[in-house]
Amino acid sequence: MKEPILIGPDERLDEVNEHIRLIQRKNGLAFGSDAFLLSAFCRPAPRSRAADFGCGTGIIALLLAARKTFAHITGVEAQPQFAELAKRNVQLNGFSHTVSVLLGDIRELSPADFGGELDVIVSNPPYMRTDSGYASPHGEKQIARHEVLGGIDDFAAAAARCLKYGGRFYTVYRPDRLDSLLAALRAHKLSPKRMVFVHDHPDKEPSMVLCEAVLGAAEGLSVLPPLILHEKSANDIEKSLAERAQRIYDTGRFD
Amino acid sequence: MKEPILIGPDERLDEVNEHIRLIQRKNGLAFGSDAFLLSAFCRPAPRSRAADFGCGTGIIALLLAARKTFAHITGVEAQPQFAELAKRNVQLNGFSHTVSVLLGDIRELSPADFGGELDVIVSNPPYMRTDSGYASPHGEKQIARHEVLGGIDDFAAAAARCLKYGGRFYTVYRPDRLDSLLAALRAHKLSPKRMVFVHDHPDKEPSMVLCEAVLGAAEGLSVLPPLILHEKSANDIEKSLAERAQRIYDTGRFD
Repeated sequence: MKEPILIGPDERLDEVNEHIRLIQRKNGLAFGSDAFLLSAFCRPAPRSRAADFGCGTGIIALLLAARKTFAHITGVEAQPQFAELAKRNVQLNGFSHTVSVLLGDIRELSPADFGGELDVIVSNPPYMRTDSGYASPHGEKQIARHEVLGGIDDFAAAAARCLKYGGRFYTVYRPDRLDSLLAALRAHKLSPKRMVFVHDHPDKEPSMVLCEAVLGAAEGLSVLPPLILHEKSANDIEKSLAERAQRIYDTGRFD
Repeated sequence: MKEPILIGPDERLDEVNEHIRLIQRKNGLAFGSDAFLLSAFCRPAPRSRAADFGCGTGIIALLLAARKTFAHITGVEAQPQFAELAKRNVQLNGFSHTVSVLLGDIRELSPADFGGELDVIVSNPPYMRTDSGYASPHGEKQIARHEVLGGIDDFAAAAARCLKYGGRFYTVYRPDRLDSLLAALRAHKLSPKRMVFVHDHPDKEPSMVLCEAVLGAAEGLSVLPPLILHEKSANDIEKSLAERAQRIYDTGRFD
């Protein structure tokens, strides 16, 4: 039974899809296609135990929980106001049996925080160097976007610590920092096995890259066909590519 | 004035394009789209001094020479029979003033071999581990394809040794070994700046990746829109993508 949930004056309530509603901060980072695509990109075995490192509002954990294949998902969040918000979103959507929220810094995590090593870790980590980009006027946005509380190497290190051998780390990152992503994965024995570049339009550079890495696996990467989000026009577009994006949105799955 | 050139009984003469003819071994690796696309991917400044590491028949050096922007190109080849064949191809096409061929092992190269540090190095290196793939019945194919005389790390190390600071290393590689490519580049301070995945068809995994790396540059990678070589059918193809491939073939340039 869902209980009434408080929504603050600086918050709004959005319908993500037919299964999920989400409380978001009016001035915060809004849920975007990166979270949706990252959760769709996951290929969990049944009854997987998972975590989302830097869960923010909890959107990815909720999207994963809605797939009903996970035994448990822990959202880890370093900012208390987001951890509290994520807890309310879990309650709002009736996922308290599957999703829990842990207030903590990913740099200090160990398997004990999850009752043992995990099968799956997902993360939409901060992707801007602390010395680059426009400083956000909001401190909480700054932390979500910039590497204030750890960069990609810290996230990869934490994932490698908390995953079981053969466990999978899913991340979404900026293509212009692909080199940093792969270097961080390699440094922590996370072998990239599946990757897809996501383009807003077929003739534009990709705006994000999704990557699945397996702890301890041998080299051998599948770069999937590019994912094109929007048709350029009705006439000069490879419709099947845009239709693929639509199918992923519709089903929440890549395959 | 072009002199008559000997063509052996185990060789054949092919027209590569309107500018270039190529003697190839009947049983050897045939010139393919990888060499053509790699040379088209290069963006040399005028009067650049360049080398092709592992030049084989000399095809890439000839394609670059035909652009008439290079001051000099040295093809380096470890197998004597290919170094000799590359020399005949240079002579056949009248490029003796621009292209020279050096018989040698890339692992032993230094700037002195080129009269100083280079602006551009291109390489279509062997891409199969010595412990993988079908062993080719021909020793010379084995060396061209497998990492018998050095792997990607050796090629990156040699490029970093022989390039000037800010010089560019262009390579074509297998996407499933992208992690090894980027690790090798990073280990030798070659920063990947531009990359394109080449797909035979838009809904297939890429068959190759082209990469431009700059010695000593800061991180910041442009992943270009995917390059699609063949239309799937007249009706369900993004024609502008396949037309882009055709333009590159026509002009020999990416831009």
